[in-house]
Amino acid sequence: MRAKTPSESRTIMTDMVLPSETNPLNNLFGGELLARMDRAASIAARRHSRRITVTASVNHVAFNRSVPLGSVVTVEASISRAFRTSMEVFLDIWMEDRITGERTKANEAIYTFVAVDETGTPTEVPPLMPETDLEKERFAAALRRKQLSLVLAGKMKPNEATELRALFMD
Amino acid sequence: MRAKTPSESRTIMTDMVLPSETNPLNNLFGGELLARMDRAASIAARRHSRRITVTASVNHVAFNRSVPLGSVVTVEASISRAFRTSMEVFLDIWMEDRITGERTKANEAIYTFVAVDETGTPTEVPPLMPETDLEKERFAAALRRKQLSLVLAGKMKPNEATELRALFMD
Amino acid sequence: MRAKTPSESRTIMTDMVLPSETNPLNNLFGGELLARMDRAASIAARRHSRRITVTASVNHVAFNRSVPLGSVVTVEASISRAFRTSMEVFLDIWMEDRITGERTKANEAIYTFVAVDETGTPTEVPPLMPETDLEKERFAAALRRKQLSLVLAGKMKPNEATELRALFMD
Amino acid sequence: MRAKTPSESRTIMTDMVLPSETNPLNNLFGGELLARMDRAASIAARRHSRRITVTASVNHVAFNRSVPLGSVVTVEASISRAFRTSMEVFLDIWMEDRITGERTKANEAIYTFVAVDETGTPTEVPPLMPETDLEKERFAAALRRKQLSLVLAGKMKPNEATELRALFMD
Amino acid sequence: MRAKTPSESRTIMTDMVLPSETNPLNNLFGGELLARMDRAASIAARRHSRRITVTASVNHVAFNRSVPLGSVVTVEASISRAFRTSMEVFLDIWMEDRITGERTKANEAIYTFVAVDETGTPTEVPPLMPETDLEKERFAAALRRKQLSLVLAGKMKPNEATELRALFMD
Amino acid sequence: MRAKTPSESRTIMTDMVLPSETNPLNNLFGGELLARMDRAASIAARRHSRRITVTASVNHVAFNRSVPLGSVVTVEASISRAFRTSMEVFLDIWMEDRITGERTKANEAIYTFVAVDETGTPTEVPPLMPETDLEKERFAAALRRKQLSLVLAGKMKPNEATELRALFMD
Repeated sequence: MRAKTPSESRTIMTDMVLPSETNPLNNLFGGELLARMDRAASIAARRHSRRITVTASVNHVAFNRSVPLGSVVTVEASISRAFRTSMEVFLDIWMEDRITGERTKANEAIYTFVAVDETGTPTEVPPLMPETDLEKERFAAALRRKQLSLVLAGKMKPNEATELRALFMD
Repeated sequence: MRAKTPSESRTIMTDMVLPSETNPLNNLFGGELLARMDRAASIAARRHSRRITVTASVNHVAFNRSVPLGSVVTVEASISRAFRTSMEVFLDIWMEDRITGERTKANEAIYTFVAVDETGTPTEVPPLMPETDLEKERFAAALRRKQLSLVLAGKMKPNEATELRALFMD
Repeated sequence: MRAKTPSESRTIMTDMVLPSETNPLNNLFGGELLARMDRAASIAARRHSRRITVTASVNHVAFNRSVPLGSVVTVEASISRAFRTSMEVFLDIWMEDRITGERTKANEAIYTFVAVDETGTPTEVPPLMPETDLEKERFAAALRRKQLSLVLAGKMKPNEATELRALFMD
Repeated sequence: MRAKTPSESRTIMTDMVLPSETNPLNNLFGGELLARMDRAASIAARRHSRRITVTASVNHVAFNRSVPLGSVVTVEASISRAFRTSMEVFLDIWMEDRITGERTKANEAIYTFVAVDETGTPTEVPPLMPETDLEKERFAAALRRKQLSLVLAGKMKPNEATELRALFMD
Repeated sequence: MRAKTPSESRTIMTDMVLPSETNPLNNLFGGELLARMDRAASIAARRHSRRITVTASVNHVAFNRSVPLGSVVTVEASISRAFRTSMEVFLDIWMEDRITGERTKANEAIYTFVAVDETGTPTEVPPLMPETDLEKERFAAALRRKQLSLVLAGKMKPNEATELRALFMD
Repeated sequence: MRAKTPSESRTIMTDMVLPSETNPLNNLFGGELLARMDRAASIAARRHSRRITVTASVNHVAFNRSVPLGSVVTVEASISRAFRTSMEVFLDIWMEDRITGERTKANEAIYTFVAVDETGTPTEVPPLMPETDLEKERFAAALRRKQLSLVLAGKMKPNEATELRALFMD
């Protein structure tokens, strides 16, 4: 399969924070943002694989800033690394102040999707070829995250996770 | 503040998988489940703290099993450890087959919430006192997860994360 | 068919009152609560019968207390009596104050469901075996309610409704 | 206050059955219909009283016919009797077959609303003056239903419910 | 096919403005009203044609008045002219003040629908026979609108649009 | 006020067609697309004006292609011309086939928004400076559309609409 670049799967979802999506402090519910990010990440994974894609996992997501009612939120998703049948999707979340238009980073998130056929069986996806420096950095880190995920799930022994081990032994 | 047990915050949210929440394979969207889990976890955190609670982070969540349209899904959330102003919430997700009634574990998830006052400022929460073996095990693991989260966010040096380090150096 | 107890069908649905579900006084719309109760009752009926279940009727429901935005609402449903193909489901609705955590009874409701097969034809359901005093009391009252329902629908003559008649002739 | 006729509060809500509102048999969920009826009844009560209105109770509602996906459903609500601060709203539900256009009665329902001021305190409503035979019949029956409701709530002794008693002693 | 009158397709959809449908000024979102009008117009077109109907176009819609949260909105739709396989639907939108009950025209809109069979192929619809003066006036204007639409889409030369031309050359 | 270019307001909203948004042919409801376009256009108008923006009108929108369930839809909105307090927003709608990824134009639409202050009073907006050929073409056509809109609303005499008149007299 022909390798694809991250920009071929880049997905931009800009939308408002509606009154039905807010908590008692009038900020966007974390759960609503998680659902939007899942839809954007799913589209990016589909654009990379041209397959049905299902959420396999959500990596650590930190909600650093609250997003007030009436803000414009942009979710930007693209593939950061492709494995055999799975894809890591990196998401950058931006918010725009309603009045000043100032754009700030609200948070980042990482989801993993698996490509499946009509019966739900995992199928191969094209490799990813990162282009920019940021894409290359995220591509490299994706391997450490995969090892971490395997270790936490008990599917890899900690001492086999060479990339991760280096991190803690320096 | 008086310590509370996990059962004081236990929150059970049983509901159906509705047609508007499914993907092209007729299974529950990952994003919808993330939103439901966020609401259940938020209630558990509120029951523990008696404060407004906001999502601080979502830890690694693996979607091991797809949940078909028409299933009954039960989200069970309770506090697994309380820190000064934040609480780790552990979620167990069960699904019931529509016909046989068989109940299987769909997945687990861990969210972190912060208690805030009306101005959004973090406020102290009661300590957690685990009772059962499972609660004690989750309580202990919560510290390792917090260290991991701090390391990944660049707020703790890997060699200070004593709990984690031990894991990789054995 | 083996008789089942009410606790085998007990269904707990705890969720928040969201801004999109409120009336001009910022309280939960009656209609939204009716819909939540219908979903919870439907799950209880399914757990008892292991069949597709459809709403047959809603008995008298009184909304005694308004439920403010931001409250946590718990709908608890279980079978109170099984007839040949229908089941009476009794619902207790609790609300929790966001700040004090105080839990008060918001209202009670009674729904009737019918078990059907894939073609929509009613099918038999297991008998119910009440255990606690409250369950036994609700079980007995269910017969009076069924008679009342038949009388009101013109399917039973008032003088045949022996249970009911006694009530008005004392 | 000037008496009003039922036609002054008549409210017609015609809408489709959407895919997100259906159960596993592809028919409209009872709970969705209950919510639509509540909104229509609330508008009728507001038109009669020119006040904020809140759902006080739902009387016996029978779902005689299932309403398939794609049907057009018409909810017709009007006041059947006004008491001091409460109003009984009678609803007729019609469904239209998508292909033949045939219109059949799906069910009837009776809701009770209370008129309140901005603080939620009940306030007086105008009397109702029925005009047609059907309106007069529903007006008369409303008193029996109110007695029944008071008896069931333990607020009236069965032997004081003169209208009802007659029904069971004939 | 037997000609039908506009009153045979008249569709009335009365509903409230809910909190989840409002913009930062607490008025109904234009987009929500467009969606409601589309559903009402689709039902009117189905009632005229007894076919599946799909939106073909939305003509110029002016939002003259904002509709505040808590208003009651009535969408009234009926066929204003039938062509071979398409129907022009004229919509009148009324809003009622929550307190005074005063009813004012919020706006008008014109949608065009096409009748299709199960494969999506356009099929013939009955002719329309206007009855009242207003219906006759809208019927006549519909031809000018159709010409305008064809001219704007480049499917008719301006000098062939005899009805329209007259308008600009007077 | 500094003139802005169309690219400064460009808004991209990519999302899936969900099961709850489809008609009986399993295609996206026209009304749902109208609502999405309204949100995207509103964001573009806000980005241009840095004001609250409200929908003033929807110009002729043709739905040329049906959009099947499971498609990815991209709504691209940018300002095509700014008047004193109003802005014309031009929208291009693209759909992507789920399997082949082929991207086709589904339709175009034109909305007009007005910038208002917190009291709802219209306020001035910056002029638009088109850059590309397509932007210049749309900018020129916007004036004809505005005249047409004024003529249709009876606010301009047809013989004063010099741009339009030329069109029909050639």
